[in-house]
Amino acid sequence: MTTTLHSFDTAIDLADNGNGQYVGQTTSDYANMVGPFGGVTAAAIVRAIERNPDRIGEPVALTVNYLAPVTDGRFDITVRAARTNRTNQHWTAEVAQQHGVTTTATAVFGIRRDAWSDTEPTMPPAPDPESIAHTATSGPVPWMRNYDMHYVDGGIPTEPADSASSTTTLWVRQRPARALDFPALTALSDVFYPRVFLRRGRMLPAGTISLTTYFHVDGTELAAQGTDFVLATARAQRFARGYFDQTAQIWGRDATLLATSHQIVYYKD
Amino acid sequence: MTTTLHSFDTAIDLADNGNGQYVGQTTSDYANMVGPFGGVTAAAIVRAIERNPDRIGEPVALTVNYLAPVTDGRFDITVRAARTNRTNQHWTAEVAQQHGVTTTATAVFGIRRDAWSDTEPTMPPAPDPESIAHTATSGPVPWMRNYDMHYVDGGIPTEPADSASSTTTLWVRQRPARALDFPALTALSDVFYPRVFLRRGRMLPAGTISLTTYFHVDGTELAAQGTDFVLATARAQRFARGYFDQTAQIWGRDATLLATSHQIVYYKD
Repeated sequence: MTTTLHSFDTAIDLADNGNGQYVGQTTSDYANMVGPFGGVTAAAIVRAIERNPDRIGEPVALTVNYLAPVTDGRFDITVRAARTNRTNQHWTAEVAQQHGVTTTATAVFGIRRDAWSDTEPTMPPAPDPESIAHTATSGPVPWMRNYDMHYVDGGIPTEPADSASSTTTLWVRQRPARALDFPALTALSDVFYPRVFLRRGRMLPAGTISLTTYFHVDGTELAAQGTDFVLATARAQRFARGYFDQTAQIWGRDATLLATSHQIVYYKD
Repeated sequence: MTTTLHSFDTAIDLADNGNGQYVGQTTSDYANMVGPFGGVTAAAIVRAIERNPDRIGEPVALTVNYLAPVTDGRFDITVRAARTNRTNQHWTAEVAQQHGVTTTATAVFGIRRDAWSDTEPTMPPAPDPESIAHTATSGPVPWMRNYDMHYVDGGIPTEPADSASSTTTLWVRQRPARALDFPALTALSDVFYPRVFLRRGRMLPAGTISLTTYFHVDGTELAAQGTDFVLATARAQRFARGYFDQTAQIWGRDATLLATSHQIVYYKD
């Protein structure tokens, strides 16, 4: 019997060199305009911490800072438990290549327990993903081909016209289908094309500088999503002279708010 | 002539030991339930980077992770420029005390330039701060006495009754008045009492684990706010078995969106 790794698992496959040192290889499947898709770099960091023998609990918060493009080839991830408390653990992480540090990160892992719980916002209304055409994505960004994307609102602009709103909402899942786990959810939190493209109706130089994701479910709740679509929605709050923010929600089809995520993005216009 | 430092400047006053090493002292004025107000620790990190001779530009993004309480007395801040690009710079920072690392942080500083700019959300409607009574804060949290807080919505609950909304909006400024700068804006991004208190109508064990702030103005725009009130608004999205998120906006009285901020908070209920 031959088993083939999913392209996503290949992209975040890590050799464990001990003492929190992991080695990965970029793959052409997840290439972006420059370097790999930021979401897959973030996912590899989560995978490295998950695999570390010192790790307790599951992801609660992650911040990833993109210092410089990751170039094709080998990358080294170093993770370190900065502090282990009774029910949570703080991590620092760094991705480096021969040319220097490309990525820094901090993460909080934690153990969830019974407590009063509630979700305040409601899931954006959306027709079933099966009723919306899939967006076939074109050449320049290979990583997008690894996702089925069905845009509900704010699709990639095809005409050079300004939009008053930066909101994009889409049904999305990995292609081929793959059960949702924390690395995959992490990558999904960066699945949106830059909000400035939507407002300006065209592509511009833009890139994520820092990404923060808060996870609201444990591994069992996440696994219950299976390979189904999730509803991802994002908007910007302010575009301010070269930097804009983005705030996002990722919902399970069953209306579970799986994650909320924020990023700050460099742009030139 | 005798000049007296503002209590906030005393709280973030740092001795520069060279090579990115700074030494500060906690002050009783900014004490919280356990250790100092998280906002003042975040502000001290911003101040340390601002003072570093390698620094270029002004704050764009900051993430601060609270690993363990800072105990009364001396604390050491170490900051390091992890990468300097043409128009931005990535920093890592750590606060340590004799008992170990208490706080880790990453920051992006950047240089703003002319570019198409816009703010999407509108400022929440609020009567003038002068028309709303100041909330005199009581004993257990000394740091709150350093702020004039005029609650527009979602004030500190005084009766044990659940609320359907976690939204708090308040006019706030430092007391005594002090011109707004980046350390002060950083501290303001953590000025909200825990959202779970509002939802549950009572105080519970709760503490910020990780705080991320995005800055949308440069120093000149910030200085233009002078000593005036800002309008700060925050809400939670999901309370999930021991951790909830908070998302916030800080507006100048002139409707400038100065900063957006997010945090994840531990709670027990």
